Amino acid sequence: MILKNDLLLRAARGEKTERIPVWLMRQAGRILPEYRAVRASLSGFKELVETPDRAAEVTIQPVDILGVDAAIIFSDILVVSEGMGLRYEMEEKKGPYFPQTIENPQDIERLRTGKAEDFHYTLDAIRITKKALDGRVPLIGFAGAPFTLLCYMVEGGGSKTFSKSKRLLFSDPDSAKKLLQKITDTTIAYLRGQVEAGADLIQVFDSWAGILSPQAYEEFSLPYMRQICEAIPDRPVTLFAKGAFYARKSLAALPCSVIGTDWNMPPQESRQLVGNKTLQGNLDPCILYGSEKFITEQTHAMIREFGAQKYIANLGHGVYPDTDPMKVKHFVETVQNFDIQSLEAL
Amino acid sequence: MILKNDLLLRAARGEKTERIPVWLMRQAGRILPEYRAVRASLSGFKELVETPDRAAEVTIQPVDILGVDAAIIFSDILVVSEGMGLRYEMEEKKGPYFPQTIENPQDIERLRTGKAEDFHYTLDAIRITKKALDGRVPLIGFAGAPFTLLCYMVEGGGSKTFSKSKRLLFSDPDSAKKLLQKITDTTIAYLRGQVEAGADLIQVFDSWAGILSPQAYEEFSLPYMRQICEAIPDRPVTLFAKGAFYARKSLAALPCSVIGTDWNMPPQESRQLVGNKTLQGNLDPCILYGSEKFITEQTHAMIREFGAQKYIANLGHGVYPDTDPMKVKHFVETVQNFDIQSLEAL
Repeated sequence: MILKNDLLLRAARGEKTERIPVWLMRQAGRILPEYRAVRASLSGFKELVETPDRAAEVTIQPVDILGVDAAIIFSDILVVSEGMGLRYEMEEKKGPYFPQTIENPQDIERLRTGKAEDFHYTLDAIRITKKALDGRVPLIGFAGAPFTLLCYMVEGGGSKTFSKSKRLLFSDPDSAKKLLQKITDTTIAYLRGQVEAGADLIQVFDSWAGILSPQAYEEFSLPYMRQICEAIPDRPVTLFAKGAFYARKSLAALPCSVIGTDWNMPPQESRQLVGNKTLQGNLDPCILYGSEKFITEQTHAMIREFGAQKYIANLGHGVYPDTDPMKVKHFVETVQNFDIQSLEAL
Repeated sequence: MILKNDLLLRAARGEKTERIPVWLMRQAGRILPEYRAVRASLSGFKELVETPDRAAEVTIQPVDILGVDAAIIFSDILVVSEGMGLRYEMEEKKGPYFPQTIENPQDIERLRTGKAEDFHYTLDAIRITKKALDGRVPLIGFAGAPFTLLCYMVEGGGSKTFSKSKRLLFSDPDSAKKLLQKITDTTIAYLRGQVEAGADLIQVFDSWAGILSPQAYEEFSLPYMRQICEAIPDRPVTLFAKGAFYARKSLAALPCSVIGTDWNMPPQESRQLVGNKTLQGNLDPCILYGSEKFITEQTHAMIREFGAQKYIANLGHGVYPDTDPMKVKHFVETVQNFDIQSLEAL
């Protein structure tokens, strides 16, 4: 099917675009009253993730309501651990947690390596979404980075210090790597399934990368990110390692297309570090708490720093649930109305 | 009084030292059974902070037990907000919280500017500690950075997104700056009191700096850090902005002596960014969960990267409460036994 709006894919491939594509991490979610209505009609978050036609419905909402240039399939990075036999729960306002966690090498042995069909609900949701989108915009598939999944599976949820995960890395690196490899194998099966179901681009979220030192990142995350990139030669891949400013160069050296950046990372510095690759990001989500005038100024400043080509506008993190959707729409329109010729004439 | 061990001060001032000084953030605290015994004999954390002879006692414990090259006065960065009229509570395992928070401009107006005598308990603890230390090692005084204090006072505690604080910055910057100035004025009074009571070096902790963009840091933290540095021309000042890798250069341009770094920040990069200033840091506290052999290797690698001069060894964050004190001692001894001539001969 030919895409009517393929700006995202062209920007990801480094091709010239006539305007800057824009979408938001967590655009399908709690900021939209329309999402909350769907969510309220079901028993909980997990039922929504596991009900393909409803997942497809909320995936498409931001395309209709906010006018973004891409859809991202509604799911959660934790489905991968569930496919490996470790069940997660989603508690309203508190976030995800695991009733049972990985505590010893035997727990790691017991985990299975998931196959694509273990994630049939998300793959079905992708098929339904692709059909319903009818080529309006590309559909992004995604997964969590193996290191970030390890953190969730060991901590049982978020953490201030990630002491348990890092204790595993530093006191029993062999077991940590066994776990990372099992997660990686499962993730690759899952992402291949997403590509075959119709995902146009794949994003890998290394949400907890920022807790590692550069050396630890090289050892415990990068090799697994590489395997994932190598397994998806047929789609653009975006790597987003939140907080890992020090890893931009190493990540860009992997066979990926786009490097995601957060608002800590200065755009011009990122340009120098990633060479020829496309950049994505990086507005502080809290900027959207400001006035429309302030959002416009900050968005324009961001675009001027990134430049208009090889660039996908986004926030530097998922949009926060208490953000006014009208402010989000204003951000989207500010990017879309930006006259890139004004930059190129400089 | 002449110090018998002034390595920390000489390193801070950029003078040559015959070995590398070492101490740990949060060295006076829950890692030591001796601390827990004192703590258990009192009603709570705040009673310990506010009882000068007991605060002095736990301040000196790590000097006796771990052999560190500096003491840091036992207190909490939140005493400053309490001196301004906003009471904090410390909940076991959950950390600090404020029963009442700053919610509007009127709340900011109502806050008072604290004076040195509002912090008499900490100033008394410094006097008692100095006397008891009898010149064995220098005593570090400290305060939180105004931006970090603002976050606590607005959020009421820690936060995943710091949405409330950043909403204030981005939607009402004038009020935010009024609050920051009031905190700064109070902090300066408090730190001047600490210097006059006998603190040999002052460290300012900007614990939440990492949630700001470089531009927001320039606007909402740096000007207040500058005022603090300018108010303490008579002691070395260490600035530690956790997570704010992007601010190292700007911080080093202030009239301070030492830049603290966390384990994300590559030492050689830090050297280039801070010019002639001394560096402090930066071992990942979780390294201390590993074997003694692993700790030795990682500590040696860290020292080789920083170099032996203009350097104060430390962790990149406060030591975590579940760390084995013997491992901490091993880290301290590894630094102290490091033969710096082996480096200088290279």
